[in-house]
Parts: sequence; C-alpha cells; structure tokens
Amino acid sequence: MSLSVRKRAKKGPKSLVKGKATRDAVVARALEIACKEGLAAITIGRLAKELRMSKSGLFAHFRSKETLELTTVEWAREIFEQHVLLPSGSVPEGLERLWKLCDSWLEHLEERVFPGAYFFTGAFFVCAGQRGAVSRSIVQVMEEWMRALKQAVKQAQKNEEIDPEADTSWTAFEVNGLLLGAYWAHSMGKWWAWEDGRTTILRKLQSLATKEVPSKAFDSVGAFRKYLKKRSG
Amino acid sequence: MSLSVRKRAKKGPKSLVKGKATRDAVVARALEIACKEGLAAITIGRLAKELRMSKSGLFAHFRSKETLELTTVEWAREIFEQHVLLPSGSVPEGLERLWKLCDSWLEHLEERVFPGAYFFTGAFFVCAGQRGAVSRSIVQVMEEWMRALKQAVKQAQKNEEIDPEADTSWTAFEVNGLLLGAYWAHSMGKWWAWEDGRTTILRKLQSLATKEVPSKAFDSVGAFRKYLKKRSG
Repeated sequence: MSLSVRKRAKKGPKSLVKGKATRDAVVARALEIACKEGLAAITIGRLAKELRMSKSGLFAHFRSKETLELTTVEWAREIFEQHVLLPSGSVPEGLERLWKLCDSWLEHLEERVFPGAYFFTGAFFVCAGQRGAVSRSIVQVMEEWMRALKQAVKQAQKNEEIDPEADTSWTAFEVNGLLLGAYWAHSMGKWWAWEDGRTTILRKLQSLATKEVPSKAFDSVGAFRKYLKKRSG
Repeated sequence: MSLSVRKRAKKGPKSLVKGKATRDAVVARALEIACKEGLAAITIGRLAKELRMSKSGLFAHFRSKETLELTTVEWAREIFEQHVLLPSGSVPEGLERLWKLCDSWLEHLEERVFPGAYFFTGAFFVCAGQRGAVSRSIVQVMEEWMRALKQAVKQAQKNEEIDPEADTSWTAFEVNGLLLGAYWAHSMGKWWAWEDGRTTILRKLQSLATKEVPSKAFDSVGAFRKYLKKRSG
C-alpha cells in the first residue's frame, strides 16, 4: 500500500465530509467566475488566492484544470436541467411542453439562476467550433436542449396542434432564435425583453397552430396560459 | 531628457515601421486566440511564448493587458464594420438595406471572416452584464449593429415597405434573434443553416410587408434578390 493510499484509508467520515465541502466550495467559486467571465478566466492560482488555499491543495482535489472545468460545467448542467428541462416534464407532451420549455428558459434568465451570461448561451457560441472535452461537454448540454425543443415540436405536430407540414428541426431552431433575441434585448438593457419575448413565442406558435387550438387562446400570454390550464384541468 | 525618450528620438523611420509590424503581429495573434477561446484566454505570457518575444518587449508595446485587449476589440470592430455594416451603405435605405444587413451578417459567418465564434456574438453574451472598458467596447459594437438594424426598419416603415404599426425596436430584435438562431444551427453542424436563415428572414419581412412590395417578390430568396435588383436598376 502506497503512502497516499494509506493516508486516505486512515481518513474517517469527518474528513471525507470536509473534503467534499472544500471541493464544493472550489467548484461554486469556479462556477461564479465562469458565469461572469467565461471558463478561460478560471485559473488554479486565482482560485487558490480567493479561497485562501494552497495551489497544491487545489490540485489534490482536481488533479488538472480540465477536471475542474469539467466539474464546473457539470454543475452548470445540473442547474440548467433542474430549472429549464425538468419543469417541462410535468406538463403534457406537445404544444404545452413546447411553451413550458420556452417559458422556463426565459424564467431561468429572468431570475438570474446563473449570476452571469456565460452558461450556456455565450459558452455555446464560443465553444461550438472547438475541440476538447470541456467544449464538447458544453455543446452536449445545448444539444440536449435542442433535442427537447425538437421533440416538443414533433409531438405537437403528432397531436395536430401545430402544422405537420412545418419543418420540425428548423421550427425548433427558429423558436430558439427568438428566445436568443429576447435574451439579447435584455442584455441591451431593455426591460420589456422578457414580456415581448413571450409574446414573440406566442405569435410564432400562433402562426404554426392548426384549428385544433382555438384562435382566442392566442389573444395574449395570459389567455394562452388560461387555455392550457383549462385544457389539462 | 530621459534615457528612454532619447532612445526613442534616435529611432529612424525603419525602426518605427518595425515597431508597427511587431505591434500588428501581436494584435493579429491576440485576435486569433480571442476568436477561438475568448479574450480571457489572452495572456502576455502566452503571446510572448508563441511569438518568441520577451514579456518586457510585449509590455513596451501595450503597457497593460487591458490596452492589448482594447486594441484587439478595435481590430475586430473594424473587420465587423467592413464586412457587415459598410456594405449596407451601398444600397438604398429601408427594406433593401435591412435585407443587406442580414445578408452580410450571415455572409461574414459563412465566409469565416473571424476564425472562431467569439466576436461578437459569444463576446456580447459574456460581456453584456460586465463592467470595465473592454466589455463596454464589445457592447458598443453590438449597439452599433442594433442601431443599424433599427434604423433600416424605421426607414422601411417610412417608405411604407413594411407595416408602420409594427414595433420598430422589437422588430429589429426579432430579426437579430432569427439571425442568431441560424448561427446556432450552423454551430450545431447544420449545413442548411445559412440557406434556411435567409429564408427565415425573408418570411419575417413578408409577414411585415405592405402592399407596396409585390407578393411575388417573396417567392424565394432568389426572387427577392431579383426584385431588389430590378427596383434599383
């Protein structure tokens, strides 16, 4: 048994908990930096200084900068799933789920779930063309997001809620673009961005809707929410 | 006269040219790194190593990392203006200019004018919420872009080419969103992204157009280009 393994074997539950807490504190701070300045702004030196740890102590937890970055992306992914993807699972598949995905996406920005604009929109644009495990993991989260949107469009077409002739994949990308446009407007300081963003999505859904959805449902975002609630209730 | 001033005074035109060339080489490399990995990935140490210069030599040219970053953004701004904003000045104001802005924007990505996705979309999302001169300079370029879009929409409304009742500002943000959606699709490896992006913009313009624009013009991107050419010729 090597010295380090013996050392680890001697550790009781208390030090394991402390190890986890330290690790979590490092990732939390790394996530905060990345949200505001991007993953490239994370350095072991900066983290060690800010958390008053030794560089070697940090290395003991993560072994490499890449592991630290991957762990940070993993945390961000969990937050994104929890706030954007999972809530949509509670509503019926199809038009309602499509709306819920868009609504939750806008909401997670509105509520500043991430304290900066890097995850995942900024990160996706920066990382999409790059090689490497970290870029890949960021792109994967956005692929998951696009799959959820596309699946919702497809199901809405199956339900005959939206035009079955519409290009499923492109519709998902258009919806995503309109969401990005709203985020952009908000980032330019437009206070009406979230409200108008929801209205834009509603107009898009209206333009695709079949006669299965009463036209009154599209009178306003409020009217649409009421319609969905009544329908499922 | 201090030693450094005397030294500089002794420099002939040749060394001034050489100084400019070195400076340009540094900024060119910094721009390349930023395009692919973001501004945060630029460090004086990395540049010095890659360009086989001394760190102090680099500092003599830029004095601070911030100056280097600002110069890099300035270069990127010039490229963006040259490829996206300036070409639109050669066509009449209004609907045609709005189309040209969108077309040039897609084209500068299609032709990979920047060797990565940081400038300016990724950078804008990362920097919009941040303080500091560098973030501010990035946001300013995107404000210039949005002003150009908005001005084109406004003029198209004045020309009665598009619905004067449409919200000018929001229409500009929607158009921008649809462009971002196309860029996103391309970044996900969709080869049809640019073509479908142009069609999406055309459909948006069609939905806003007044009867001043013959409906035939919206049959396809090719038909729209022909219509614009015929009109101005």
